[in-house]
Amino acid sequence: MTAQQFDFETVKKLTTGAIPFAERAGIELLEFDRGHVKMKIPLEGNQNHVGTMYAGALFTLAEIPGGALFISAFDMSKYFPIVAEMNIKYLKPATTDITVEANLSEQEIQRISEEAQANGKAVFVLNLELKDANGEVVAVTSGNYQARSRQRK
Amino acid sequence: MTAQQFDFETVKKLTTGAIPFAERAGIELLEFDRGHVKMKIPLEGNQNHVGTMYAGALFTLAEIPGGALFISAFDMSKYFPIVAEMNIKYLKPATTDITVEANLSEQEIQRISEEAQANGKAVFVLNLELKDANGEVVAVTSGNYQARSRQRK
Repeated sequence: MTAQQFDFETVKKLTTGAIPFAERAGIELLEFDRGHVKMKIPLEGNQNHVGTMYAGALFTLAEIPGGALFISAFDMSKYFPIVAEMNIKYLKPATTDITVEANLSEQEIQRISEEAQANGKAVFVLNLELKDANGEVVAVTSGNYQARSRQRK
Repeated sequence: MTAQQFDFETVKKLTTGAIPFAERAGIELLEFDRGHVKMKIPLEGNQNHVGTMYAGALFTLAEIPGGALFISAFDMSKYFPIVAEMNIKYLKPATTDITVEANLSEQEIQRISEEAQANGKAVFVLNLELKDANGEVVAVTSGNYQARSRQRK
């Protein structure tokens, strides 16, 4: 199983562009390589009642990379990702634009591919850190995703 | 400590209206009483790449009631709520508008009030069910909130 190749603009359309909820929040794809994505959300437009970034905006920034990472590494004609569970801990108020990086190692990509091929699905976990413009971690998340085969087993 | 009294329109402005992120998603306050809120999010405009409700939209519907419930029961001139941690489990695809109800008993309101007054803060947990138009639970959440005193101890 090999990853499909997309240009950067196509990937943008497939990630935030396919989800108006994320697009309205201004979530932006900054980096995209096989097994690696980096995304950003602006503070502007996403503030809460006290002017820091709203909790749901931070959650969304952390959730979106799962799909983008999936596109980077798997054949989307055969498999699709779903999120089964997610946990977010808020560590400090977010007062700047926030970024997040997510990675899947080649070994992990291989494992997921083999399991999904054999069982029709495979679980993968992403533990992410959301960082402000000074590199401070404002929130940490743990997401359980599944790679699912389009041909049900 | 007694709850401030607001009319329904003022409460709407204080909850979704104060958070553009939630307002853009069309989250709506349906019911508001002391210790009870009910909120709704429309499917329209909040779909993901496969046409069901996007994970971040469901999260946001579950997060917002914590603040609304707080307004219903506590003196906002003395205390304010923050969310410290939240977990969401996605049980089935959401294919309709989704609603959520959140409640705090008088006993729990009393406990939170006393603790916040004594210690400057008090933790409260909300375990919520997100339901579709047929009453099916599409996701469950557990949120850890804090009531914090505006006068730091």
